[in-house]
Amino acid sequence: MSIITLLTDFGTSAEYAGLMKGVILSINPSAAIVDITHQIDSQDIVQAAFTICSSYEYFPDSTVHLIVVDPGVGSQRSLLAFEMKKQFFIAPDNGVLTLLFDEGKPTALVRITNTKYFLASVSQTFHGRDIIAPVGAHLSVGLDVRKLGDEICLQDAVQLDNLCAHFSEKGELVGKIVAVDNFGNLITNIDFRKLEKIRQAGQELIQIKIGSHVIRGLSETYSRVESNTSLALVGSRGYLEIAVNMGNAAQVLNVEKGTEVRVMV
Amino acid sequence: MSIITLLTDFGTSAEYAGLMKGVILSINPSAAIVDITHQIDSQDIVQAAFTICSSYEYFPDSTVHLIVVDPGVGSQRSLLAFEMKKQFFIAPDNGVLTLLFDEGKPTALVRITNTKYFLASVSQTFHGRDIIAPVGAHLSVGLDVRKLGDEICLQDAVQLDNLCAHFSEKGELVGKIVAVDNFGNLITNIDFRKLEKIRQAGQELIQIKIGSHVIRGLSETYSRVESNTSLALVGSRGYLEIAVNMGNAAQVLNVEKGTEVRVMV
Amino acid sequence: MSIITLLTDFGTSAEYAGLMKGVILSINPSAAIVDITHQIDSQDIVQAAFTICSSYEYFPDSTVHLIVVDPGVGSQRSLLAFEMKKQFFIAPDNGVLTLLFDEGKPTALVRITNTKYFLASVSQTFHGRDIIAPVGAHLSVGLDVRKLGDEICLQDAVQLDNLCAHFSEKGELVGKIVAVDNFGNLITNIDFRKLEKIRQAGQELIQIKIGSHVIRGLSETYSRVESNTSLALVGSRGYLEIAVNMGNAAQVLNVEKGTEVRVMV
Repeated sequence: MSIITLLTDFGTSAEYAGLMKGVILSINPSAAIVDITHQIDSQDIVQAAFTICSSYEYFPDSTVHLIVVDPGVGSQRSLLAFEMKKQFFIAPDNGVLTLLFDEGKPTALVRITNTKYFLASVSQTFHGRDIIAPVGAHLSVGLDVRKLGDEICLQDAVQLDNLCAHFSEKGELVGKIVAVDNFGNLITNIDFRKLEKIRQAGQELIQIKIGSHVIRGLSETYSRVESNTSLALVGSRGYLEIAVNMGNAAQVLNVEKGTEVRVMV
Repeated sequence: MSIITLLTDFGTSAEYAGLMKGVILSINPSAAIVDITHQIDSQDIVQAAFTICSSYEYFPDSTVHLIVVDPGVGSQRSLLAFEMKKQFFIAPDNGVLTLLFDEGKPTALVRITNTKYFLASVSQTFHGRDIIAPVGAHLSVGLDVRKLGDEICLQDAVQLDNLCAHFSEKGELVGKIVAVDNFGNLITNIDFRKLEKIRQAGQELIQIKIGSHVIRGLSETYSRVESNTSLALVGSRGYLEIAVNMGNAAQVLNVEKGTEVRVMV
Repeated sequence: MSIITLLTDFGTSAEYAGLMKGVILSINPSAAIVDITHQIDSQDIVQAAFTICSSYEYFPDSTVHLIVVDPGVGSQRSLLAFEMKKQFFIAPDNGVLTLLFDEGKPTALVRITNTKYFLASVSQTFHGRDIIAPVGAHLSVGLDVRKLGDEICLQDAVQLDNLCAHFSEKGELVGKIVAVDNFGNLITNIDFRKLEKIRQAGQELIQIKIGSHVIRGLSETYSRVESNTSLALVGSRGYLEIAVNMGNAAQVLNVEKGTEVRVMV
């Protein structure tokens, strides 16, 4: 049985994700379809870029990942398909793959042009249903990616700058909040490897600044601090997270997506 | 493998949809169950009527569609089952099937009365779990619809008037917003065939009025207008939609479900 | 095909539930995974305790239920696994199983310690993904629960007091609202068996007090009262529910989760 995942900004109220599943099952009736999320913030390519990176490695070989965060649908933007680390990915060429391309080298990176694998009628507003779903279903039953269109060089794909935290001239690690989860945990774009460079100066001495708040030191786990106290830790995604033990950090700290986060000794 | 879809107003927070799936899998362990949506606005039969119409044709033959938008549960309203276009449907007899019945002729339209296919204990408040789920699961493993109860004439099923846009005496096409999606796109009940009659006068000349806003002309795609500009197009459902390129039309135009929409030359 | 259910407080916006599914399908590719809900209120162990109780019996034998409402993740709290009524359950040892343990006697109740069935790398913040998902998947392909760790006595598991309604000295049945569903129906912790003791005095005479509101008598169904009128009934979960026919009880009565509910003659 083959697995197909969906990662979109459709929300869960409209029928859009359901239609993609209908199209997929019409082509591959035994596909196991997994929703990674349909609640990427509307048209937030950056959030989607981090989410697919945190997700794909938990799926088995041959999984097909369909990413539909696509503000440019119906414009000249193209759709990409490729294989990487024995998995398959389809997404708009809008930069949503930037971080994934940092993790490995795609093989068979193609611009999708072969209409043979599209629905017979393609709308200008819903390529998720009309192109991405049927093409993904065909990949899941063994279609060679190269049949979908011409191969391109990685440099020809859109890639976004400055998605990740960077070191300032003063040696501070400067990032921001890229997502807030249901618990109010604040997920940043500061990955554990960069954090490691600063941590070498001594974990206890690290300071994390979010807005006007300062957190000192990294915790291993939520319960390492008192209830209702803020803490910083390397979250399950491998990125710095700000949380409040038994509480909601977004509410307690009164910050939101986009807020700058600085780490310093 | 057989496919069963769910279309309800349960929301996603309670366990109600999960229980229907448990009941289905207890009868047909290999069913592939697809959520079309559980977020039809509470008891909004009209929105559900449009949604099932926009959805069913993307599913393969033999799919069983379960529609549970059922404000009259526990009253004298009956439940219907039928076959249409090689698919199966189960729904309360409350008008939710009105638009579907415009698309084709149902065969084997029955009122469900055969308790043999119900759960052993039937509550007065959750027929989705106790009747619709088990009956749907039995259909998915090949039960003949006619075994569920006596056949009725189509005229004996509840059908609602005035769901679709109509032409006024002045020749204007008068409809309304029936759904607002996660992007803030405004979906109307004005279908592309009626629109075509007005478009014959020339696409550029068409005016669409929503509240105090006027949009001139139809676009082919969101990106045909500047960012943050409103536009009208025939959406992926085949109905007139009002959108804002890279923005949220519901917020920008400050309108909501139910707002009148008029199309004129 | 084996069934695995998920009951969590993750919400639906982050990728957390999707990752658990990826891990499960990596071990058991033919698992059918059912979401009971991911919208238990954050860290609300009591609500989760009622929800799993209302749900499990609608699933077939051998279903594996994974419960991840886990405010103590990363602390010293342990994880439990057991078999009951031919189904399997995994949950943190935080009291979420209290009501389930009232329904039957678990066999093979173990504290999970055998890291052989965990992911290779276990985070301190997401045991749902790193322990519960892989262990559940192994159970679904036939692993003996006893292989997961040492058996313990039921008395050694955390159990919470006062989850259910109780009789006051005046003979009133005193409970509270434990959940509010998408329709605004108010679900209480007053079960039909206790209610039966009071009902013996005569159904018509019963009074239900919620805040300053009084409802007289129990209804069999929503439609037994006028539209927009409040009513009380034994809901599909077997607990007393307060509803408004064709309306939203939470809004109409202006009450919320936690509000006391009293039943008296």
